[in-house]
Amino acid sequence: MTVLTRSISLNTRGNTDVIDITDQVSKIVAESGLLNGVVTIFCPSSTSALTTIEYEAGLISDLRRLFDQIVDSRQNYAHNSRWGDGNGHSHIRAALLGASLTVPFVDGHPTLGTWQQIVYVDFDIRARRRELILQIIGE
Amino acid sequence: MTVLTRSISLNTRGNTDVIDITDQVSKIVAESGLLNGVVTIFCPSSTSALTTIEYEAGLISDLRRLFDQIVDSRQNYAHNSRWGDGNGHSHIRAALLGASLTVPFVDGHPTLGTWQQIVYVDFDIRARRRELILQIIGE
Amino acid sequence: MTVLTRSISLNTRGNTDVIDITDQVSKIVAESGLLNGVVTIFCPSSTSALTTIEYEAGLISDLRRLFDQIVDSRQNYAHNSRWGDGNGHSHIRAALLGASLTVPFVDGHPTLGTWQQIVYVDFDIRARRRELILQIIGE
Repeated sequence: MTVLTRSISLNTRGNTDVIDITDQVSKIVAESGLLNGVVTIFCPSSTSALTTIEYEAGLISDLRRLFDQIVDSRQNYAHNSRWGDGNGHSHIRAALLGASLTVPFVDGHPTLGTWQQIVYVDFDIRARRRELILQIIGE
Repeated sequence: MTVLTRSISLNTRGNTDVIDITDQVSKIVAESGLLNGVVTIFCPSSTSALTTIEYEAGLISDLRRLFDQIVDSRQNYAHNSRWGDGNGHSHIRAALLGASLTVPFVDGHPTLGTWQQIVYVDFDIRARRRELILQIIGE
Repeated sequence: MTVLTRSISLNTRGNTDVIDITDQVSKIVAESGLLNGVVTIFCPSSTSALTTIEYEAGLISDLRRLFDQIVDSRQNYAHNSRWGDGNGHSHIRAALLGASLTVPFVDGHPTLGTWQQIVYVDFDIRARRRELILQIIGE
């Protein structure tokens, strides 16, 4: 058993930009040389989050609408009033979806379903350069 | 330290079917022979998810209402328009709740609270045969 | 590689009390002597949950409003009708946010962002004494 730390760098457009990182995660797991274990993907950020979804344009649009509906950016946010930011909704959406995702891998491959992709969602209100941490534990 | 891969097969009715898998998870952890570690339970699916809840009929009904309210199946979904499916809401509910759950175990037992159960929620719109992956890491 | 079990005890006020546990988690990881791995923080409870957020008063207020809006305590809950409890909304909020959080650590430090804290959220409707489980796996 060993632990390996890797990272993924990416450029996002913000504003609930949904980015498929499955291929990058799978490649990093394969190149680790570990066959069985788990990979924890983590956003060191308070305005972005991780989940899995079938990555197709219709669902990406539906997911963005969900967040517009349940964490409406047009409400008043105490965060914005206190700090002059406009990204209160970004923080709340990220806290709800969650910054951490742990995926098993077997024989060097993440155990994803056929139509299931790992996505990074940047809720911030501007384009950003982001880095995700991958902690791989296995043998 | 070692890693062991196990699975749970189950038949669901779909439509936000909430299934208590605590006993199966506990049995698999006990039979692993590992005493201390974590078990990551993962849905290789984009229309189902995992969480913990007190498994009693009132709360199951309340949980189903929550999803009817915040991810209403009667809205139009771009996923449905593009693919002729009727399960756009199933995908969005699953992405929100999350496909992965990691639970510590100590002395061979998951560290659940007295009234806390592990549940699998199948949001798809038809009965399905499902398989969950359990990745157990410990010693 | 080894696994270590630790815990955090805390007093909460309930009612969506949001408590910053970052310093306690960081201290426990540092004192474990492990340099690289993951810490899984787990609530053995069905009315409380974990996430990360920028811990400042504005966002805490915004997060509490989110839960008031999407899991309204003033609705009727089947749980309350069946059991005479008043905390049906507490259970549903906890199931939605999630009882488990896994955070990588590198060189003895959790890989959190600059403005990102780990928070425990007690949704129950009264003050409580709580205990969280930390399962640390690393080397």
